[in-house]
Amino acid sequence: MRALEVLLILIGISSVSAGTVDQLAPAARGAAATITGIVAVLFFVEYLVRLWVAPEIPRLHAATEGRSRLRWVISPEGVIDLLAVLPAVVAVSGGARLGAESASVFVLLWVLKLATHAPGVEMIARVFHNERSAIAAAAALFAIVLFSAATIAHWLEGERQPEAFGSIPASLWWAVVTLTTTGYGDVVPQSALGRVIGGLVMLCGISVLALLAGILATGFAEEVRRREFVRIWDLVARVPFFSEVGAIAISDIVGRLRSRSFAAGVTVIRKGAAGDSMFFIVTGKVEVRLGPRTKALCDGDFFGEMALLDRRPRSADVVTLTPCTVLVLNVADFYQLAGQQPALIAAIETEAKRRRADDRGADTS
Amino acid sequence: MRALEVLLILIGISSVSAGTVDQLAPAARGAAATITGIVAVLFFVEYLVRLWVAPEIPRLHAATEGRSRLRWVISPEGVIDLLAVLPAVVAVSGGARLGAESASVFVLLWVLKLATHAPGVEMIARVFHNERSAIAAAAALFAIVLFSAATIAHWLEGERQPEAFGSIPASLWWAVVTLTTTGYGDVVPQSALGRVIGGLVMLCGISVLALLAGILATGFAEEVRRREFVRIWDLVARVPFFSEVGAIAISDIVGRLRSRSFAAGVTVIRKGAAGDSMFFIVTGKVEVRLGPRTKALCDGDFFGEMALLDRRPRSADVVTLTPCTVLVLNVADFYQLAGQQPALIAAIETEAKRRRADDRGADTS
Amino acid sequence: MRALEVLLILIGISSVSAGTVDQLAPAARGAAATITGIVAVLFFVEYLVRLWVAPEIPRLHAATEGRSRLRWVISPEGVIDLLAVLPAVVAVSGGARLGAESASVFVLLWVLKLATHAPGVEMIARVFHNERSAIAAAAALFAIVLFSAATIAHWLEGERQPEAFGSIPASLWWAVVTLTTTGYGDVVPQSALGRVIGGLVMLCGISVLALLAGILATGFAEEVRRREFVRIWDLVARVPFFSEVGAIAISDIVGRLRSRSFAAGVTVIRKGAAGDSMFFIVTGKVEVRLGPRTKALCDGDFFGEMALLDRRPRSADVVTLTPCTVLVLNVADFYQLAGQQPALIAAIETEAKRRRADDRGADTS
Amino acid sequence: MRALEVLLILIGISSVSAGTVDQLAPAARGAAATITGIVAVLFFVEYLVRLWVAPEIPRLHAATEGRSRLRWVISPEGVIDLLAVLPAVVAVSGGARLGAESASVFVLLWVLKLATHAPGVEMIARVFHNERSAIAAAAALFAIVLFSAATIAHWLEGERQPEAFGSIPASLWWAVVTLTTTGYGDVVPQSALGRVIGGLVMLCGISVLALLAGILATGFAEEVRRREFVRIWDLVARVPFFSEVGAIAISDIVGRLRSRSFAAGVTVIRKGAAGDSMFFIVTGKVEVRLGPRTKALCDGDFFGEMALLDRRPRSADVVTLTPCTVLVLNVADFYQLAGQQPALIAAIETEAKRRRADDRGADTS
Repeated sequence: MRALEVLLILIGISSVSAGTVDQLAPAARGAAATITGIVAVLFFVEYLVRLWVAPEIPRLHAATEGRSRLRWVISPEGVIDLLAVLPAVVAVSGGARLGAESASVFVLLWVLKLATHAPGVEMIARVFHNERSAIAAAAALFAIVLFSAATIAHWLEGERQPEAFGSIPASLWWAVVTLTTTGYGDVVPQSALGRVIGGLVMLCGISVLALLAGILATGFAEEVRRREFVRIWDLVARVPFFSEVGAIAISDIVGRLRSRSFAAGVTVIRKGAAGDSMFFIVTGKVEVRLGPRTKALCDGDFFGEMALLDRRPRSADVVTLTPCTVLVLNVADFYQLAGQQPALIAAIETEAKRRRADDRGADTS
Repeated sequence: MRALEVLLILIGISSVSAGTVDQLAPAARGAAATITGIVAVLFFVEYLVRLWVAPEIPRLHAATEGRSRLRWVISPEGVIDLLAVLPAVVAVSGGARLGAESASVFVLLWVLKLATHAPGVEMIARVFHNERSAIAAAAALFAIVLFSAATIAHWLEGERQPEAFGSIPASLWWAVVTLTTTGYGDVVPQSALGRVIGGLVMLCGISVLALLAGILATGFAEEVRRREFVRIWDLVARVPFFSEVGAIAISDIVGRLRSRSFAAGVTVIRKGAAGDSMFFIVTGKVEVRLGPRTKALCDGDFFGEMALLDRRPRSADVVTLTPCTVLVLNVADFYQLAGQQPALIAAIETEAKRRRADDRGADTS
Repeated sequence: MRALEVLLILIGISSVSAGTVDQLAPAARGAAATITGIVAVLFFVEYLVRLWVAPEIPRLHAATEGRSRLRWVISPEGVIDLLAVLPAVVAVSGGARLGAESASVFVLLWVLKLATHAPGVEMIARVFHNERSAIAAAAALFAIVLFSAATIAHWLEGERQPEAFGSIPASLWWAVVTLTTTGYGDVVPQSALGRVIGGLVMLCGISVLALLAGILATGFAEEVRRREFVRIWDLVARVPFFSEVGAIAISDIVGRLRSRSFAAGVTVIRKGAAGDSMFFIVTGKVEVRLGPRTKALCDGDFFGEMALLDRRPRSADVVTLTPCTVLVLNVADFYQLAGQQPALIAAIETEAKRRRADDRGADTS
Repeated sequence: MRALEVLLILIGISSVSAGTVDQLAPAARGAAATITGIVAVLFFVEYLVRLWVAPEIPRLHAATEGRSRLRWVISPEGVIDLLAVLPAVVAVSGGARLGAESASVFVLLWVLKLATHAPGVEMIARVFHNERSAIAAAAALFAIVLFSAATIAHWLEGERQPEAFGSIPASLWWAVVTLTTTGYGDVVPQSALGRVIGGLVMLCGISVLALLAGILATGFAEEVRRREFVRIWDLVARVPFFSEVGAIAISDIVGRLRSRSFAAGVTVIRKGAAGDSMFFIVTGKVEVRLGPRTKALCDGDFFGEMALLDRRPRSADVVTLTPCTVLVLNVADFYQLAGQQPALIAAIETEAKRRRADDRGADTS
């Protein structure tokens, strides 16, 4: 659904953009206008549908009580969805057809709509929110360098290049182009001193950029850690094997697992390959193929532990029978976990021994 | 107060900047000059007020003894505040009116004043100070590449472009523009070898930038950690719930809390939403709304723990009655803390059980 | 082998590139074409050889069963190797000689071939894969800013500069050049408002870049940790000294070791130098030179521990007799390990005492 | 000594650079040449002095045996020092005077000399060395994008702009300028497809830059950790208070201390200020001023612990009497250490109690 929505938005943006190209053949422009119209209509229909179903969808942030339709209308998403169709509605209901130029406002509105649907945008917004004080400080630093540079450049170059450095606001253009190391080259200091200042501004620019990168790297690592934890936690809760572990000790484990999804028929483990991780099945069914014999595993089972325990290549193929979600435990984390949760690893070892005995029994039979 | 000060400085900088635009109508220029004058006068008044109250403000770095007025005058802040008004005082007392050009010096002085008021600038300064040896090394590297590039470019391109590469100082301009990847394009190497050198310089440029980003990211993460620790510690000390915890074990907790402030009347927790954190009230009053019944909580109480313990959506709305400062404990950190401080989580669980019993009693009554 | 392959590819790319230069003398162009041909033939031979030996090479991801030749042909590597020779085969078998222009397609194919051979490219690909959701979010952000900037610039500058901003697709060129802070300067906003937007776009550009750096830094640190762990683990398993350590406690040690390789005849430790690390020999032979006496150490022995235990300069030269692979334990990690694995350090201390006694016995004799 | 050396090198580089400016007055050029000569002579003298004293300086990497003079001559530093004077020696001994152009080779040689003296350059070199495999991968990626971009641009733009894109080597210039986001603007793609490729190359450029920043950030954080550990370890070894702590447990402490140096007469702690750290004296003498009474502390003593234990403002001024080197323990680290090394903090608390008793005794007397 979401992918379809994103695709529709992208088609809409493309058609509006194409509509603004004057060199286009009239036929092509007409086609672009038609597509724009269709997308607008679809969004209008979507708006009505969403408005209709709003009370029936149990959602995270909305209560399930009475006036939830109004609540959706005034929610940011509702407002953006409304804005995304309003201009078309107004234009058409006013009897006028949307011109290419006035239609171009849709690009902005639909880009906004895209932002509410793009995955991860909300996460990045949260990183910026968490680090807002540090980012504000970097922005203040940026502003301080910007104004200082513009003023000094105005003094040094104002007489020589009155057009570009004649006033502080004019100098600001040069300062921002230089400080972000964009360097259009339309305005360049020509006096020796002006160039020294220019060089210093560039240095400040790469420092501010580096500083910002440092701030965001720190904030991002933190946010990723928190987010992953909650997501994996929800998956771990569905694996019976972990239910025996105390609810509190489990946090050790959660931090080390990663989730992965496979389609049906995928070979997750190939015989003879290096064994670098083991798997816990959250949902789905897999088949272990030891030569002629096969063994089916499903929700809550684990596989791939033998290669980790013995440090040998994989001894069997493992193929998914249905679409699967699994939790992956890396070899590095497996052994680090072993130090902290010996009981858990012991349970895995016991199961591995039992399986090996089974296999041997099957082989000799 | 501080926001007002920052606003005033920004108005001042804007009016001075506007005053340098020659194309402006005389009326507008007059207005700009007037605003500049007013801001200068306000800063002068501010300086006198600060000088007056200096001995009475107990401050972090100033002792409360005798000659603290003088101490403030010679402190960096005092000197900058003085500099910010001096030119105006001199000009006016000398009977002259400040011209737009001479007024533009205010931009620099007020930007300096801004730096002392902007939040976080001091923190960034400390990061640069802590990492000064690594930054100096990066700067040395930068200088080494810069001079080498300028010299080699001078050899390779000197004859072909005598204007731009005729001497090493002239070549330096090209080198700095290229090394910071600004790339104005006013000076471009034209020989094949010169272009190879140019390409290498650009590569060095992005490496130096990457190196600087690495240095600052490392330093920033460290400084953030230290700073947050001290700030949260001060807040934790005010929450009675934590006072029962040993003074030393508390450091485990402090590293995991984040402070947040809410205005009065804000819905902190909404019924039915996902429960991803719990809250400790440092100051302020909140109301828990379980349908018809309400319960007030104030300084030192905590709320939101049930959704964490049960992994269920929120069961009540929580609304602030007064402006509140709360400490937030994320679900990820809640469980990791549980492993390290079981007693603390047990206390929270006990309280949660008591509350649940209360609720059930109230429901059956 | 791999270095030879990479060299051959680079020669091939260079000769194809040279072949496209029109100003070249006919002789030189002929030589380039000849080299291109030779490289293509060599790659053809290589393809046949690889196809031949495919079933006999036990490889990580390929099973050792029946149709492994076909499997190699349809593997990514096999397909790329085929593509790298196909055009030449087609052209020659069609009786035609490859022109310089049509030969230039080889650059792309051989660059692709290079990608499968370059060390670490696969690792970087995995980082991008692991962080794909965050990178997608950054890309979405990039797209959002890009389209917004192009649309607004189209409105503000469209009339003034119809060539560059006359349509949204045309404006996109300016937007992408500005957002990546490349700043060619061929298109520059000229209205005041357009410049304000331009400045904001540049700021967004350095923010997106910083964000991306943050994402990749986080992902890279994680991947490096996992990879190094597995590699060192395999080496540690070959050192007898560590075999006495429990299989699980070893993970503590593995995280702290680094591997290093030396040619024969290299002085690993120089007498009188500062002792900042100790060494475990994985494979190879070294000679300890205490003045006139020498002592040979081989696989599984360790050396350099005395300087760490006594914090004194090195007391002997240690020279490799054969090519060696050693594991290095840094002084910082040595003592941190000492806190966690006291038994291990105790074993090293015992051995060191025994050696010191030996030396003293030898000296007095 | 080192600062003087660096200054001398910078003077030398400046004078050589100035000597290449043709517009300079003959007198100024003469002065520059004279200074260049003097610097060259000084470096020659320095070379001879270093050669003379080489055997007498016990150095980290050099053994103290016989032929250490020769060893210094063939060490990298010795070779660079020789190169830095050789041209002048040759020119003068050959009876010729160095022309400005031929003198400019000194810039490169002296920049090389600078590299051996600049602090931290060696550290950065080590980070690059440690991360060489990852950096090589990033470089391979860079090369792959570069060649692909140049080839595709050659196809798309070759006909339209034969000068700039007529051959692959020519296209490479555009590719490198774009991929590093330098963007001179001397060569710009003009076809729609060429611009799409250009945009993609810019995106790859900021990704590679971000990747490099991530690699270096990871490597740098690691190297800083190792280096600081060794440096602090050496200082800790000189503080008697820590000598009671077991040699192995000390590694916990070392990771948390930072060293700082103060001149004589500096107020390290000011009465009434917030107490955010405590200090251990490595070398030097300080005076604690509790109103009228003073108390002297010297090597191995500590101070500032009371404010940390009581969370109160500082109760006394502490002023250095001689230049001091101290180890600083942050409040955050103090309490985290308390959890891991309770005995150590207990010792500090005991001393603090004794001091408080002393003070009270002094006050009542």
